[in-house]
Amino acid sequence: MKDLLAIDGHWTAELLTRFLRVELERTGLRDFVVGLSGGIDSAVSTALAARAVGPDRVHAYLLPYRQSSAASIDDALEVAENLALKTERVDISPMIDGFEEASGDVGRHRLGNVMARARMTILFDRSLKRNALVLGTSNKTELLLGYGTLHGDLASALNPIGDLYKTQVLALAEFLELPESVRKKPPSADLWPDQTDEDDLGFSYERIDRLLIAMIDQRHDDEVLIAAGFERSMIDDVRQRIVRTQFKRMPPVIGKVSLRTIGWDFRYPRAWKS
Amino acid sequence: MKDLLAIDGHWTAELLTRFLRVELERTGLRDFVVGLSGGIDSAVSTALAARAVGPDRVHAYLLPYRQSSAASIDDALEVAENLALKTERVDISPMIDGFEEASGDVGRHRLGNVMARARMTILFDRSLKRNALVLGTSNKTELLLGYGTLHGDLASALNPIGDLYKTQVLALAEFLELPESVRKKPPSADLWPDQTDEDDLGFSYERIDRLLIAMIDQRHDDEVLIAAGFERSMIDDVRQRIVRTQFKRMPPVIGKVSLRTIGWDFRYPRAWKS
Repeated sequence: MKDLLAIDGHWTAELLTRFLRVELERTGLRDFVVGLSGGIDSAVSTALAARAVGPDRVHAYLLPYRQSSAASIDDALEVAENLALKTERVDISPMIDGFEEASGDVGRHRLGNVMARARMTILFDRSLKRNALVLGTSNKTELLLGYGTLHGDLASALNPIGDLYKTQVLALAEFLELPESVRKKPPSADLWPDQTDEDDLGFSYERIDRLLIAMIDQRHDDEVLIAAGFERSMIDDVRQRIVRTQFKRMPPVIGKVSLRTIGWDFRYPRAWKS
Repeated sequence: MKDLLAIDGHWTAELLTRFLRVELERTGLRDFVVGLSGGIDSAVSTALAARAVGPDRVHAYLLPYRQSSAASIDDALEVAENLALKTERVDISPMIDGFEEASGDVGRHRLGNVMARARMTILFDRSLKRNALVLGTSNKTELLLGYGTLHGDLASALNPIGDLYKTQVLALAEFLELPESVRKKPPSADLWPDQTDEDDLGFSYERIDRLLIAMIDQRHDDEVLIAAGFERSMIDDVRQRIVRTQFKRMPPVIGKVSLRTIGWDFRYPRAWKS
């Protein structure tokens, strides 16, 4: 049987590169800004953008917090060097300190969201300065599970990897010959030392992705999923995450009272260029 | 001829109150958080929320910046008192100072966006703390013209006034008997002293709203709009604003490579409750 998670690196890179080039041109802008975390997702998005418009038009930002791991910064720099990008570094610690000054200690979960939103604030600000679009770096696994911060790392203008599961992003990274250090380390949101995504989620990405592709792309029902070897508890957990985080994949919901309502029946007046 | 901008205050308030109550219940949450700016939009949204779930379950935040006008804060407090709400005050100045420490002087336009995003960060953080939803406060005029900050004041979970034009929000404020001080002052984003929306936009809200309802809700073409007394230059300006700011009314655009893609053919797996 064909492995549905398998991708053709050449074809996928071509298609997504073209997507970035065409959609950027439609907006009338020329450049991308992106936050390079040192992780695999931002590395792959950035590599695709560099292919699409050339490295001179991709502005990579390192956005460390005081407690970010030094290894992550090194990895981000290695990616930038690999892609011949110039980088700019903006320490978000003063913004986070400003938040804590007004809010006290909110715990690491809430602070993680605040950090993601501080990074969003920097990237969208710089995109305005540079007449650029913010490049998305969330993969399909994260988006479906809602494993990310709304109006934080989930925010972007164009996302080239949002239709690729995590294991597919890894495969594409190999095709794109991204540095081993980035491809071989355990995926982590890097919000505290030794955090790993797979510990947070409770399952390996390989296993989650196989379930998601069967559940979402193939639309199999539970009977088929169980016959394929997925436990009832995992199926329930994953489905609940998808349902509970639906709001993260939608614009704000507006109460309808008129003839044409934004998000309901007023959607696309026309393409981006008038 | 019927005045299309005219609303029935009683019916509109009923419908939007019900919208808030039903949609909040669906999420399994009980409370709302909202930023009270002292302006008419947040006052009307908050009044609807207080009707929907009672004032004890609406948490109003005053989020002033060092240079915010004292009159705005007084107006916000008057609205809170009028609705019997308790308020909490969080000064965003330390967060903005933290941004400027890393970024220098970026000018008032970019700083306005940063301020809107700092407020969003506080409100979404508090919504997590309180198991609450963030209430939207953007009206239909602003949303169509893109007159607001993406991932800033445009961000919310539920928006009760997003289908009401600015002049309709004012009419609803009168029906809801909100304080005169809030209803009678010139609309302003309050980003710098003496800023008014109508100066920024170049037209009065009355005039813009009449054009928008004819163009968007009635779908009239230019010939009809011109016959109705709108100048070609105004029609072009308003349409261009709508088209150029379309990205503010959409989730990030994802490059499609799979069988089912978020935002394209994977939209609603089911209602919010599984």
